Formats: sequence, C-alpha cells, structure tokens
Amino acid sequence: MLTTVYIIAITAEAMSGALSAGRRQMDMFGVVLIAFITALGGGTVRDVLLGNFPVNWTQHPPYIYLTMLAGLLTVLLARYMHHLQQVFLVLDALGLIAFTIIGCNVALELDYGLPVVVMSGVITGIFGGILRDILCNQTPQVLQKELYASVSILVAALYLILVHFNVSHDLTLLAAFSSGLALRLAAIRWKLSLPVFYYSPERWQS
Amino acid sequence: MLTTVYIIAITAEAMSGALSAGRRQMDMFGVVLIAFITALGGGTVRDVLLGNFPVNWTQHPPYIYLTMLAGLLTVLLARYMHHLQQVFLVLDALGLIAFTIIGCNVALELDYGLPVVVMSGVITGIFGGILRDILCNQTPQVLQKELYASVSILVAALYLILVHFNVSHDLTLLAAFSSGLALRLAAIRWKLSLPVFYYSPERWQS
Amino acid sequence: MLTTVYIIAITAEAMSGALSAGRRQMDMFGVVLIAFITALGGGTVRDVLLGNFPVNWTQHPPYIYLTMLAGLLTVLLARYMHHLQQVFLVLDALGLIAFTIIGCNVALELDYGLPVVVMSGVITGIFGGILRDILCNQTPQVLQKELYASVSILVAALYLILVHFNVSHDLTLLAAFSSGLALRLAAIRWKLSLPVFYYSPERWQS
Repeated sequence: MLTTVYIIAITAEAMSGALSAGRRQMDMFGVVLIAFITALGGGTVRDVLLGNFPVNWTQHPPYIYLTMLAGLLTVLLARYMHHLQQVFLVLDALGLIAFTIIGCNVALELDYGLPVVVMSGVITGIFGGILRDILCNQTPQVLQKELYASVSILVAALYLILVHFNVSHDLTLLAAFSSGLALRLAAIRWKLSLPVFYYSPERWQS
Repeated sequence: MLTTVYIIAITAEAMSGALSAGRRQMDMFGVVLIAFITALGGGTVRDVLLGNFPVNWTQHPPYIYLTMLAGLLTVLLARYMHHLQQVFLVLDALGLIAFTIIGCNVALELDYGLPVVVMSGVITGIFGGILRDILCNQTPQVLQKELYASVSILVAALYLILVHFNVSHDLTLLAAFSSGLALRLAAIRWKLSLPVFYYSPERWQS
Repeated sequence: MLTTVYIIAITAEAMSGALSAGRRQMDMFGVVLIAFITALGGGTVRDVLLGNFPVNWTQHPPYIYLTMLAGLLTVLLARYMHHLQQVFLVLDALGLIAFTIIGCNVALELDYGLPVVVMSGVITGIFGGILRDILCNQTPQVLQKELYASVSILVAALYLILVHFNVSHDLTLLAAFSSGLALRLAAIRWKLSLPVFYYSPERWQS
C-alpha cells in the first residue's frame, strides 16, 4: 500500500514542480528537471546525508520516467489544473505522509538514532519542495505557510511510537495516514499555522 | 584529447562564473569561489549523487588552482571580455560536450543503468551553471534559454549509441563534438529553444 | 577548549540563522530549520564532499537539540538582540575560527592533500552562512562584505604551518584564535574588505 501511495505521491509532486517551472516560464527541459527534483529531491537529500548509496532513484528507472512524464503531462493539462486544486491538496498531503514514513524507515534500517530518524522522515517529506523553490528563486514556501512540516513531524512521531509498541503494520499506517491527512486538511481549511517570527531590528530601535 | 578539451573547458567555465560574480559585485573571494563552483560543481554534484568518493577535484589540485586563477585573471581582463563573447560561446559549447561525455563515462564505470548514465552526463554538463546561478540569486538560465541541456542529452545519447556499437574511440569523440557543437551554435545563431511553459492560473480563471 | 568554543559557536550561528529567518517572516519551523542549517550546514557540506560518513551531527544529538533550542530562544529574545550585536560579532568570529580548525582536522585525518585541507576548513567555516542565505533567497553575504572567508583562509594556513612545525597544540590554538580574532575585528572596525569585482558589460561597451 505504501508503494502505491508513493507512486501517486511522486506523480503529484512532479506535477506541482512543473507548475512552479511554468510560473517561471521555463522551457520543457526546465519543466522536466524541476518535476523530477520536486518529486525525488527529498529522498535524494536524505540518501546523501545518511550516506545511503546508491541513491534510491538511481536503482528505479520507472520512478525517473514517471516524474518526467508527469511533468510533461502537466503542460498539456495546464489549463485544467486549477480545477484540480482540491484534489492536488489531498494528493500532496498523502505524499507528505508517505515520504515521511519511508524516510523514517530508511534511517531506522541504517541504525541511526531517534532524532536523526525523525529528521530523515521530515527531510524526505519537505526537501523536494525546498529544492523546487530554490531553483525557482523564491523563499521556500514550506517555511512560511500553513502547517506542513509540522504534519510531517507529528506523523513521524506517531509512526515511531506505534512501531515501538509493535502495533500491527496496517493499523500503524492507517493511524499515520488518517491523522496526518486530517491535520493537514484542517490546517488548509482553517489556515492553521505556526506562530511567525517577524524580525525587524528597526521595530525596537526606533 | 578529452583531457585537453576538459582543461580548456573548466577554464572557460571558471571565467563565466567570475563574470557572474562581478555582476553581483562580489569580492575577490566570491569571484574565486564562484569560478571554482561553476567549473567543478557539475562534476561534484555527479560524484556525490553517484557515491563516487573521493570527489574528482579533491585528487587533482591543479584543476583547483587553474579554476581559481582563471577567476582572478577574468577580473584583470574584464574590460576586454565582451570582445571575446563569440570565442566564449564556442569554448562553453566544447565544455558542455566534454563534461557530458566524462559524466557518462563515470557512471558507466560504476555500472549504473542507462537512464542514470545519461543523467550523469547531463548533470556534469549543466549543474556547474545551475549552482553558479543559485549562488548569484537568479533563476538558472539553462532552464530558460536556447537549447543547452538538450545538446547535452543528444550528445550523451549519440555517444552511448556509438560506444554500444563499438565505433572507434576517436570517431565517437569526433561525431559527438562535431554534432554537439553544430547544434549548440545553430541554437545560438537562430535562437532555437524548446517550447516554453508559461503557467499563470489567472490566464484561464478570468 | 576547541569543543567549548565549538558549542558556543554553533549556538551563536544558530541565533544568527534564526534572525535571518525572522527577517523573512518564517514560522517557528523555518526558524528552527534555518538555525540548524546555519550552525551545522558547513560541517555537513564538508562531510558530504569528503565522503566522511556518517555526517558529524547525526552522531551527536545534543548538537541538534542545542541549535534548535537556540533558534527558538532567539525568538523570545528578539527585541534585545540588537543590544547584543557587538557580542555576536565576537562569538561569530570565534565560531569561524573554531569551524575552520575543525574542518582542517577532519580532512587531515582522511589524508586529503593540502589544498583540500584548507578548503575543508574554509567550507566548514562559511557554508553554514551560505546555505542560510540561499534558503532566505539572498546573495550570500560572505561573498560581498568585510573580510570573512579571508580570515578563515589565513587561520587555516597559520594552523597548518604551526602543526607542520610541531608547535604545541595549546600554543597553536592560541595563535590561530588571537590572530584570527584580531583580523576579523579589525576588518569590521575599519571596514576592511577585499577588492570588489564590479562587472557590467555596458561600462565598456558604450
């Protein structure tokens, strides 16, 4: 089941990357590259940081092709994309949760300590989007908008607790996905966000 | 021959990096750093992604010194650089082709699959320029302008086909360089580019 | 002693990162992430480039927690931070020197050549700040402002010379820290900087 959600997720992430490329009026190569990096960049950063070679996608050509094709498909469907906004928010949330759980598992198998396991999950979840925003020359949105990384952290924590107590695999995934999805959609619906730090030296100097 | 072209290429790339640093009014350290990263950054990203340690330039100090000196030299020659623009376009194209072939060879020797071999060539060819643009806080030009990454992809494909059919090494290089150079220069001359994806939700919503 | 200075340094760097996040009005997660990356990003880039796995901080959870807490603490103390500007400049200079020496030692132990050892020191010293600036979507300040990377280079050179001549460890550290600190503070006080390269093709074309 995690693999199915993963495949849906990298497709949705690739399409979101392609739209960002289109906002910067990139050419078809830029669209394909940003789609690929948005979808598979989080896992790449994780594998490189954890010294987990070979990097995952280098062993799975179908994932490479899938993200690139999804990028190109997005160009064809561009004029209908805004009708699908709601669908995308759900797919993106599912992707965030799947990426987080997969990232935790990779670090667990490499015997990293608990904080690194959580960070591995969060990095897998959010760094594709961060790389997309860096390449599109904008401040990473995940650091400014509604609860997103927080969802990843809570999903990682819940997942690790349930795994620790030997809860069955299916129940663990069900709990992680349902609570993660609920929190993320609630955050979008009611614009829930972490407190923002607005620093301006002039505010206090004057 | 490939080594000679490689040395010319990293020099030309370093000089292009130094000019970008100068456009951002960086100091001499910035010039040297951006020159180094523009010239050797593509190979670095490739080696890190492929887990190919030690990273190439760490074993070749002369390449480090060469790129840094080329950066400093660019400052001295700055006022004459725009006369050399045509020369640079040719050197840059030669560099793109040499980087691509070298990148393919590195991945081939590490027994990566075909799509990763092509990507290794393209990454080696274009990521120096992408890192340069990120550090100079601008959207990567390679994703927006005339055929560039496309030349890298076609050169990689042609190279791998000729290698596959055991065509002699010299003939393979000749074919790759002549067709790559012809395509790149034609792209500049007639402003050939891939279709651009211009995405603006408002275009279809209103 | 180096460890003590290192701990003070990563705290100070984390706080500088948090202030940058605040200038971009990031949320608490953004503050924590930028604090972490500013403090530990230089060492991370070094470890990845040198193939030195596992990356240092993955084996030292206290450093992870310290930098994240320092980021959050900065939010609480924000309105007093500009009073502490002088203190921070000194702590930041101490950090730059400690990072440089630690970075040289890591590369020395891995038997890299001399130029790579110096670069390892400089990368450890300055790349946390460069990653901070990239994530905050601004041109890296270290490439434009008063002597900073230069201090790192000179400290690395002095350190390696003294180590080469078997000068006692304590004396070596004393010399590196006092000369590095003196140079950095003099650079701030008298606005010493490297020559700037201002490149504008139009300057010479018209």
